[in-house]
Amino acid sequence: MKIVIDAMGSDRAPAVEVEGAIQAVEEYGHDLLLVGDEPAIKAELAKYKDYSNKISILHAPERIEMHEPAALSVRRKRHSSIVLGLEVLKREEADGFVSAGNTGAVVCAATLSLRLLPGIERPGIAVGYPTLKGVSVLIDIGANIDPKPIHLLQYGIMADAYAKYILHKPNPTVGLLNVGEEESKGTDFIKETHALLSESKLNFIGNIEGRAIYHGSADIVLCDGFVGNVILKVSESIVDTLVKALKQEIQANFIATIGAALSSSAFNKLKKKMDYSEYGGAQLLGVDGRCIISHGSSTPKAIKNAIRVAAEFKTQDINKRIVEEIESY
Amino acid sequence: MKIVIDAMGSDRAPAVEVEGAIQAVEEYGHDLLLVGDEPAIKAELAKYKDYSNKISILHAPERIEMHEPAALSVRRKRHSSIVLGLEVLKREEADGFVSAGNTGAVVCAATLSLRLLPGIERPGIAVGYPTLKGVSVLIDIGANIDPKPIHLLQYGIMADAYAKYILHKPNPTVGLLNVGEEESKGTDFIKETHALLSESKLNFIGNIEGRAIYHGSADIVLCDGFVGNVILKVSESIVDTLVKALKQEIQANFIATIGAALSSSAFNKLKKKMDYSEYGGAQLLGVDGRCIISHGSSTPKAIKNAIRVAAEFKTQDINKRIVEEIESY
Repeated sequence: MKIVIDAMGSDRAPAVEVEGAIQAVEEYGHDLLLVGDEPAIKAELAKYKDYSNKISILHAPERIEMHEPAALSVRRKRHSSIVLGLEVLKREEADGFVSAGNTGAVVCAATLSLRLLPGIERPGIAVGYPTLKGVSVLIDIGANIDPKPIHLLQYGIMADAYAKYILHKPNPTVGLLNVGEEESKGTDFIKETHALLSESKLNFIGNIEGRAIYHGSADIVLCDGFVGNVILKVSESIVDTLVKALKQEIQANFIATIGAALSSSAFNKLKKKMDYSEYGGAQLLGVDGRCIISHGSSTPKAIKNAIRVAAEFKTQDINKRIVEEIESY
Repeated sequence: MKIVIDAMGSDRAPAVEVEGAIQAVEEYGHDLLLVGDEPAIKAELAKYKDYSNKISILHAPERIEMHEPAALSVRRKRHSSIVLGLEVLKREEADGFVSAGNTGAVVCAATLSLRLLPGIERPGIAVGYPTLKGVSVLIDIGANIDPKPIHLLQYGIMADAYAKYILHKPNPTVGLLNVGEEESKGTDFIKETHALLSESKLNFIGNIEGRAIYHGSADIVLCDGFVGNVILKVSESIVDTLVKALKQEIQANFIATIGAALSSSAFNKLKKKMDYSEYGGAQLLGVDGRCIISHGSSTPKAIKNAIRVAAEFKTQDINKRIVEEIESY
């Protein structure tokens, strides 16, 4: 098993990526290829035990920044860590790719170099997230902001394979995000998607509302990439805001301060539980390869988890399962 | 000042509405008209001091339930508390209307009976919500799930009047919710809306991302009603989920339990701060009248606050300001 890591993606690259790689080697024993600024990567690697038998480096002189336009940066920066790293996968010299960099650039470069799986019209980004009933999958969180109903059906089929073979849910339920549960509700796009899903082989439970997402009412939640992107960012920021607001309240109250100190381990556990990086990042589904997109503010542990999930996608041969399922339609 | 209250709207109607009305009379001294099942309302009123000089009753033999289809229920239930209550406003016998009932039915009945303000193409629902920097306004949260760019411009103009004269923000900033801040990002709908807003007289600060909503980066956040509805419901449920998850963590840890007991007043204050009912419910903007839509699970205090805001909309003559502004375009 060999996994390629974009060492220049995260906000604290390459330190976080290198530390995550070290943890992954120690925990899983995979072979890893770090792609990026070679001197910087070497300097980070020097801080740890020598794993040069497991970790190699591919020098990439360019870096795509977080806010560069996706398509343009991929075309212009042919020697960036994202483009060069994905080319290793294209040449079938590795089994998976992990990046905490510019999501749009990863989607664009992966689609161009790996190509789409047979029958898939558009790639989608799925993310596992915590609910009151366990982990669910939200797709799409931003690869496709103006999809057609057929794209959402295909996202459902891809997420079904993910939920079955990575999350080990035997018959995952699929919900379509809408403004109400009734079939008559929603835009024309939603109504057409609802009709397609009803005729599919998926375990479709109908429309679900926004409040059902974190209640865990469905194992898979389908939405367009615009809505999914907003949900993800709102969720992240509301957790931040709540923690900050709670601290403000607590600081205003001496007894509460003592209480908060005593319960801080519970806070930290909760924060960890709500952090989707813990679940291995987001998966780019629909391309002919295994790409995991981690958060720009990833911790080493999040990188390590992403490496684990990339390997699981290979072991479970998720893409073969997706292609077989798509062909059966 | 006379405010009409749909006494049959909330999950615990008419008890919550009656208690909220009593509080409003005691605090603000407004005249109130409770519309709904007269015997049930009288039974609730009998629990309090006699305010029959300030509170009157209009009997409504029908009630529109939460999940009835909006347009159909309004046409069929001509003697429901929502329809009869809004007719009092139409006859100009009252200054505002408050309902914690079926949002779609209130939007539909208000548009049919009160009509739209001159120049306004579609009504929108605005909600004030807490951020790290104070209260901001999100519009639309579900009146119009498939809007045109001109509708969002008009929502911006209406929310501007709300933010200036009710929230007392002298020059409110307006952000357009998008998947990225760059002008090149988003759907065609977003790009056209961005162009319209850029040419407007609003204090438009450009696109904002989902994470900016609770950071308070804009005083007014514009989005289509589908996205707004999802944001509102996700936000509510994530607060619930966090509180439940935190309790689970805390129960698993004895020291943390003591801590949580000591800091519980901080939790309660936070929960209150995050509850948009505290800010007077949601405002239906664009109709020729003042309609406040409260949450189905409203407390008496939320009803009282909604009554206060309905009166403020009259006192500040928000609708006249909106019409003048729309005419100037």
